[in-house]
Amino acid sequence: MSTIEARLAERGLELPAAFRPPPGLALPFDWVRVSGTTAYISGHGPLAGNEVLVTGKVGTAVTVEEGYRAARLTALSMLGSLKREVGDLDRVSRWVKALGLVNCGPGFNLTPAVINGFSDLIIDLWGDAGRHARSAIGASELPFDMSVEVEAIVELRP
Amino acid sequence: MSTIEARLAERGLELPAAFRPPPGLALPFDWVRVSGTTAYISGHGPLAGNEVLVTGKVGTAVTVEEGYRAARLTALSMLGSLKREVGDLDRVSRWVKALGLVNCGPGFNLTPAVINGFSDLIIDLWGDAGRHARSAIGASELPFDMSVEVEAIVELRP
Amino acid sequence: MSTIEARLAERGLELPAAFRPPPGLALPFDWVRVSGTTAYISGHGPLAGNEVLVTGKVGTAVTVEEGYRAARLTALSMLGSLKREVGDLDRVSRWVKALGLVNCGPGFNLTPAVINGFSDLIIDLWGDAGRHARSAIGASELPFDMSVEVEAIVELRP
Repeated sequence: MSTIEARLAERGLELPAAFRPPPGLALPFDWVRVSGTTAYISGHGPLAGNEVLVTGKVGTAVTVEEGYRAARLTALSMLGSLKREVGDLDRVSRWVKALGLVNCGPGFNLTPAVINGFSDLIIDLWGDAGRHARSAIGASELPFDMSVEVEAIVELRP
Repeated sequence: MSTIEARLAERGLELPAAFRPPPGLALPFDWVRVSGTTAYISGHGPLAGNEVLVTGKVGTAVTVEEGYRAARLTALSMLGSLKREVGDLDRVSRWVKALGLVNCGPGFNLTPAVINGFSDLIIDLWGDAGRHARSAIGASELPFDMSVEVEAIVELRP
Repeated sequence: MSTIEARLAERGLELPAAFRPPPGLALPFDWVRVSGTTAYISGHGPLAGNEVLVTGKVGTAVTVEEGYRAARLTALSMLGSLKREVGDLDRVSRWVKALGLVNCGPGFNLTPAVINGFSDLIIDLWGDAGRHARSAIGASELPFDMSVEVEAIVELRP
């Protein structure tokens, strides 16, 4: 078993099914696009199959703690896409960059505390190789009213 | 004639002139910046010469269909910049990543349906090589009140 | 003395201390993450030690001129992080890409005029090597209510 997947299992975490958008909406893009030994990962949210697990604006409908959890679920959704694309999460040798977006209610700006839910899980799984440059900003709207969205760049073993 | 430009001509599409910002506003950056065999493309909108072709917030002033069209015009504006920079669009061997921003009215979150106007045209022109990782998010404001903005990363033939 | 640091000194500019977040907030990410000869720089704002130097929304609480100054301070904060990471700013051979975010009040969309404070300083210091692809967009909220945030990509000498 791969190291990363063993760590997921130790933590009782499962990777969700691929996201299926609502009927009538095409998503004409790749969840992961590889260029050389770099993989660019599309914006993911707390998605699992046809479900959006956490919706609403953080600071009003959604607490910081729920936002943190949404960011952690976003990481799991992203790992699901990565596994489907590269076959084994151990092929991800190093994380490089993440852009985190928080669906913010008026006046809520503690966006780093929310996106930490993503970063903490990635670093828990990969150790120092999971560290990354990051921005955590407020978006006025996110698809399907998701509370969090994250896109990322990783290095793959050749 | 280059393959991509032949496809544009078959579809009756022309690339617009370079954007000229309003008097008094400098734009001290490059529309396309090449690093190795990767080209980073600045945020473009539905721009043509000194005109901003589609303005206003999607969901209120602008319909989803008009937003889709704005995203398609954004792709054309970007292709104009690429052609001016690299000389021949066939030098773009592969699309990698796009970040799409929608100027959203309150409560409008079907941002993927808008940015599809960009992705559909790129994939129509390049086929599978036009596929890309993508995020489609709501921005609270975009320059000149443009309805859509997209930035992208592509691979160039050496 | 390095060329870039000599230029900073000629202009009377000093690099600020590393940002220290408010008590209780962890920032589990790297301010600069190097991948090959490319450095990815996390989102920075007008930060210096434990201070956020310019806060509030541009167009309402903050003027365009103050926003421009915030973007210039953001560049200095970023250069401080780069120097701490790579040791000598002359190791940055070329700028590639910047994503600028402006904390916009309702209806303010002259975001390029604000982010110019970042680009003008970088190009003043590096010359043509400082040019970069760029986007300048409105974010509904930024961490700690910063008026400006910029993330960037640069090339390093091997």
